Amino acid sequence: MSAEDPIRRLVHEFSRLPGIGEKTATRLTYHVLRSRDELARDLAAALVEVADHVQLCSTCCNLTGSDPCPICADPRRDAGLICVVEQPQDVLAIEASGEFPGTFHVLQGTLSPLDGVGPDELHIAELLARVRDGELREVILATNPTVEGEATALYLAKLLKPLDLTISRLAQGISVGSELEYTDGGTIARALQNRQEL
Amino acid sequence: MSAEDPIRRLVHEFSRLPGIGEKTATRLTYHVLRSRDELARDLAAALVEVADHVQLCSTCCNLTGSDPCPICADPRRDAGLICVVEQPQDVLAIEASGEFPGTFHVLQGTLSPLDGVGPDELHIAELLARVRDGELREVILATNPTVEGEATALYLAKLLKPLDLTISRLAQGISVGSELEYTDGGTIARALQNRQEL
Repeated sequence: MSAEDPIRRLVHEFSRLPGIGEKTATRLTYHVLRSRDELARDLAAALVEVADHVQLCSTCCNLTGSDPCPICADPRRDAGLICVVEQPQDVLAIEASGEFPGTFHVLQGTLSPLDGVGPDELHIAELLARVRDGELREVILATNPTVEGEATALYLAKLLKPLDLTISRLAQGISVGSELEYTDGGTIARALQNRQEL
Repeated sequence: MSAEDPIRRLVHEFSRLPGIGEKTATRLTYHVLRSRDELARDLAAALVEVADHVQLCSTCCNLTGSDPCPICADPRRDAGLICVVEQPQDVLAIEASGEFPGTFHVLQGTLSPLDGVGPDELHIAELLARVRDGELREVILATNPTVEGEATALYLAKLLKPLDLTISRLAQGISVGSELEYTDGGTIARALQNRQEL
């Protein structure tokens, strides 16, 4: 079977996806072959549509099929409250909580000098433009509680400090439904520091 | 985000693949988005090519991008020796052992009365035609050592018995209940060497 064989080629393309080795790629390929045309063509059409139509929202820099994205275009969302996140998946996670009435801003990364990612590589200029243009009340810095995420939040907090608005950070503590016994020391220390009066 | 959103649509299409839930489908989708056009288009092109060009080999009934398939078209393969397997993945597994000089015949399934699969649903007529037309010496029945695979081998052995050729079955050495697709090449090589006449 040559490298130009369509079956081998599909196995190769599947195995380029993260977490998919050659065995899984082969299994997926033969599943697609057994399902005949429909599944292959539907998946191919969805891939081409994503390549053709997905772009960054000109307001919040999230990936979207329409500009502005559905969240920015929704008049019921509170435009005075912006939640700043690292990546599009974080928007999905926060939306799934059903608790956030505001809009988002997606940095598309974190500050990471070792990887050559400085402020100019992130969508920070767009965030500053929104802060200056809009009647903003609060910016929630919801980058991850990792070294890079914390550094990015601190950098943004310094930039935004001179402006007249509230800057907040997602609370850190014990996860809901978790057990103290299995919670790491850093998280417990943070939960103790941030303890709230009842 | 509506159901017609290209990102949601790609998540949905990925999650139709076996073993891929919504979380993994979301991770794959954002990986494709981060890689921008090239990965999405390459995978889409490979899928369309498979849907357009992959067919059954008119000789051995294996899935192939060209008819006859590369194995049937190879003059160095011993056409007097046919290895009968259940599915295309089994051909890959046996080829990986590097021990088989003959050609294949792919039944595309096993006898399974409960699932409504009888002899007419498998490519048995094509096998009989090859047996009658060619100067065949031996047929190796390499269906899986499962209940359905054994039943299919017994059925084929009965059909082929009246004809003047050797009928063999892969040697024990393969653990009963396992699947060829996931067996290592060394075990398959041993089973080929030790095949026993029925």
